[in-house]
Amino acid sequence: VRSGEFATIQRLRERFREGSSAGVVLGIGDDAAVLDVAELMSQKGQMVWTIDEQVEGTHFVREHVSWEDVGWRSFIAAASDLAAMGASPWCALTALVLDPEIEDEDLDSIARGQQEASLEVGAKIVGGNMSRGSSVSIATTLLGTAPRPVTRSGARSGDGLYIAGEIGLAAAGLVSLERAVLDQRVERAAFAWLRPRACILEGLAMAAAGAGAAIDVSDGLAQDTGHLAVASGVTAVFEAELLLARAQGSGLIAACEVMGLEPMTLMLEGGEDYALVVASKSAIPGFWRAGTFEPRELRGFEPHAVLLRDASGAVRAVDAAHGFDHFKR
Amino acid sequence: VRSGEFATIQRLRERFREGSSAGVVLGIGDDAAVLDVAELMSQKGQMVWTIDEQVEGTHFVREHVSWEDVGWRSFIAAASDLAAMGASPWCALTALVLDPEIEDEDLDSIARGQQEASLEVGAKIVGGNMSRGSSVSIATTLLGTAPRPVTRSGARSGDGLYIAGEIGLAAAGLVSLERAVLDQRVERAAFAWLRPRACILEGLAMAAAGAGAAIDVSDGLAQDTGHLAVASGVTAVFEAELLLARAQGSGLIAACEVMGLEPMTLMLEGGEDYALVVASKSAIPGFWRAGTFEPRELRGFEPHAVLLRDASGAVRAVDAAHGFDHFKR
Repeated sequence: VRSGEFATIQRLRERFREGSSAGVVLGIGDDAAVLDVAELMSQKGQMVWTIDEQVEGTHFVREHVSWEDVGWRSFIAAASDLAAMGASPWCALTALVLDPEIEDEDLDSIARGQQEASLEVGAKIVGGNMSRGSSVSIATTLLGTAPRPVTRSGARSGDGLYIAGEIGLAAAGLVSLERAVLDQRVERAAFAWLRPRACILEGLAMAAAGAGAAIDVSDGLAQDTGHLAVASGVTAVFEAELLLARAQGSGLIAACEVMGLEPMTLMLEGGEDYALVVASKSAIPGFWRAGTFEPRELRGFEPHAVLLRDASGAVRAVDAAHGFDHFKR
Repeated sequence: VRSGEFATIQRLRERFREGSSAGVVLGIGDDAAVLDVAELMSQKGQMVWTIDEQVEGTHFVREHVSWEDVGWRSFIAAASDLAAMGASPWCALTALVLDPEIEDEDLDSIARGQQEASLEVGAKIVGGNMSRGSSVSIATTLLGTAPRPVTRSGARSGDGLYIAGEIGLAAAGLVSLERAVLDQRVERAAFAWLRPRACILEGLAMAAAGAGAAIDVSDGLAQDTGHLAVASGVTAVFEAELLLARAQGSGLIAACEVMGLEPMTLMLEGGEDYALVVASKSAIPGFWRAGTFEPRELRGFEPHAVLLRDASGAVRAVDAAHGFDHFKR
């Protein structure tokens, strides 16, 4: 069953009526949402604004994921950008493109996943848009507030390289879903891909701790850390031992053993964990240490944005271009 | 030629650096844009927020339109929602989905069209997102400020029904493009579809004049006016003579003669003009009168949201469902 556009909007309006509404003057159902700026100003900070889009065939295929998970993941991917700025999510709009095969039940599942994520991160959905298309995509835009937004450009040589969340686990999970692996040792990885977390609290903690720079890992640890390093004019040096110790604890190594994958490759190149990478002079609650930011010119190497140091102290360059590039053919 | 994702982002960053930046602390290139709320508060109003998406195959086919026009139209469609709230556009984010056939040159054209529209409506593009997909879509989210946002629900019986902009002309223009009609008498209509205006100034004027309700016409005059009438609990009564007089002046009747189309059908059902429909107790600069809002129960008819009165005074119901429904199969 597929209802018309307006019956559908009415149903979504009912669903998204729930939840907090501080500062929301007018939600779904008019030409635009209306927000109370005085409410916002009581946060005494700056406003942070992002948009992200999840596209069928690129970010997911419907065979490997429920529509509820698609809704959840689309919302979390956008919220993660706010976490990387040290911001508190405030509210959200979503633009859905749906193909004619999508039934009411599927759309309700997408909306339920979005709503669960919206409640999880504390950002009410106050409006949106729906269009017909040849496949499904979900654009999510989020507003948040940050007392002190943390950008990508403030890492300094000597800062510690800290991470919140797991690395490579979602990538292993995606492989397990593609191969339909049924083994208890891959379940945590599959869950990491299907139901990622946005590190909102960790983001607030790193901003409060005075972190110099931050980015979230959506396209791969090496690539995203490379963006931060380039923006800051430093080199990021990962310690292999620290990464592998974490991979042991997260279950990544066990999952890789089941599927014959190389954990370090997944850690450096796999995306969609939505972990935070942060430059900080000191430890931060909720973060683990993964390396150090060093000067851009290092021991006669070509200047590289991302290096990996092994237990013996030997250093090799990591090709940051191995992560996900939407435009690589 | 198609550059990688990061070279492309760099090029867009250069392009969108131009233009006003009041209140923009951080634009394209980080995880999120950062906005200065104190700047916003100096407007002493409320914040208005919308998202719209233009999808290839649904809103346009690439054979009938340049990529620059696609960029322009996508931005204007979103800005029009702010006009309908009586808001001043402030800034924007855009999420692009591009298929592998799109070359650098095409993307530059899309961005140029977006930028022209952004300068036209005074809303700087401060960030965005890019993804690979199987066809092109452009989601645009805009923030604006409004001293007194005008919703859909405040029309009262006895209010005049006023319109800013043309009606039906864009629909005629789309037909002329689909049929590749080469005739001077359709040029204005084709331009109306390719380069619609958002009625920003008219929106500010109607808000300042104390208009009770407003909506923009994207899916068809009858359908969109019907939304306003239902939200307000009144009936909208169009005067056929007033509509046809306007159609004479706009060139719609001439264009329809060339193509053998019925002007009144295009006026009532054609969308994408981005005109504003407003309920007001008095005339407003920039608006023309098209009818009256009357009580919901009218002379023994079934209650209807939209009626058309001809020169003899005879009234017929207009089926508001004849406009564009994204979910109609």
